[in-house]
Amino acid sequence: MNLFFPLPDASVAEAVATLLDRPGLRIERILSRGQPSPPGFWYDQAEGEWVVLLSGAARLRFADEVEARALTPGDWLDIAPHRRHRVDWTDPTRPTLWLAVFYGAHDTGRDIPDSPG
Amino acid sequence: MNLFFPLPDASVAEAVATLLDRPGLRIERILSRGQPSPPGFWYDQAEGEWVVLLSGAARLRFADEVEARALTPGDWLDIAPHRRHRVDWTDPTRPTLWLAVFYGAHDTGRDIPDSPG
Repeated sequence: MNLFFPLPDASVAEAVATLLDRPGLRIERILSRGQPSPPGFWYDQAEGEWVVLLSGAARLRFADEVEARALTPGDWLDIAPHRRHRVDWTDPTRPTLWLAVFYGAHDTGRDIPDSPG
Repeated sequence: MNLFFPLPDASVAEAVATLLDRPGLRIERILSRGQPSPPGFWYDQAEGEWVVLLSGAARLRFADEVEARALTPGDWLDIAPHRRHRVDWTDPTRPTLWLAVFYGAHDTGRDIPDSPG
C-alpha cells in the first residue's frame, strides 16, 4: 500500500484514511486541498498527535500562540492532548498530505463532544 | 523540526533519530545509504512496526516469504511482532529515508537479546 498513490478526491472535504488502528494508537493519512478548519473551530483532542506534513503547505495555529506556524514538507510536530489548534490555511493549488499518529487515549477512545446545556 | 533537512551523515552506518518516545510508542527516522542488514541477520522485534519508505528505494525481505518486496517512496507496511525480516538492499546512489512507528511493547521495552547458553 502506498501513501501517495492513489490519492482520493478531496475537492470538497478533507479525505482521511486510517492506515493502522491499534489500542492507544491510530495512524491516519489526511489529504487537504485548500480546506482550512471551519471558522472558530479548534481541535481539542484527548489523544496526543504526532503529525508530519509530507507534501503541499499549511499554516497551523495553536490557541496559545499569537501567530500560525507555516509548515512545509518534512515539518513535524508533537501536539499534546488538549492543546487547542486549528488549520488556518492549506495550499489551494496542490494537495497537502499529512501523516498523523494519534496516541495515548487507550480508555477514552475518540474525543467525546461537550455535553449539551 | 524537519524530516528531510538536515540529513545526518549515513555513509558508514544507518543513522537513526528518535522523534518521539512515549510508553508503548516510538517514532524513528532511519536513513540508509546503501546499507543492507548484515548477512544472515534478521530483525525479530517484540514490538509491532508500522513503517513507510519516504525516499530512495529498498528491498525488504520477510523470513516467511520467498522473495523480497521492492519498496518505492510512499510504500508502507505493518510488521507484526516477531515477524522476522531484513533489509536485503537499499539504493546506494541516493538516500533512503524511512519513518518507523514502533508500538505495543509497553512492559517489555526494547528487544531483549537471547540469553546465552
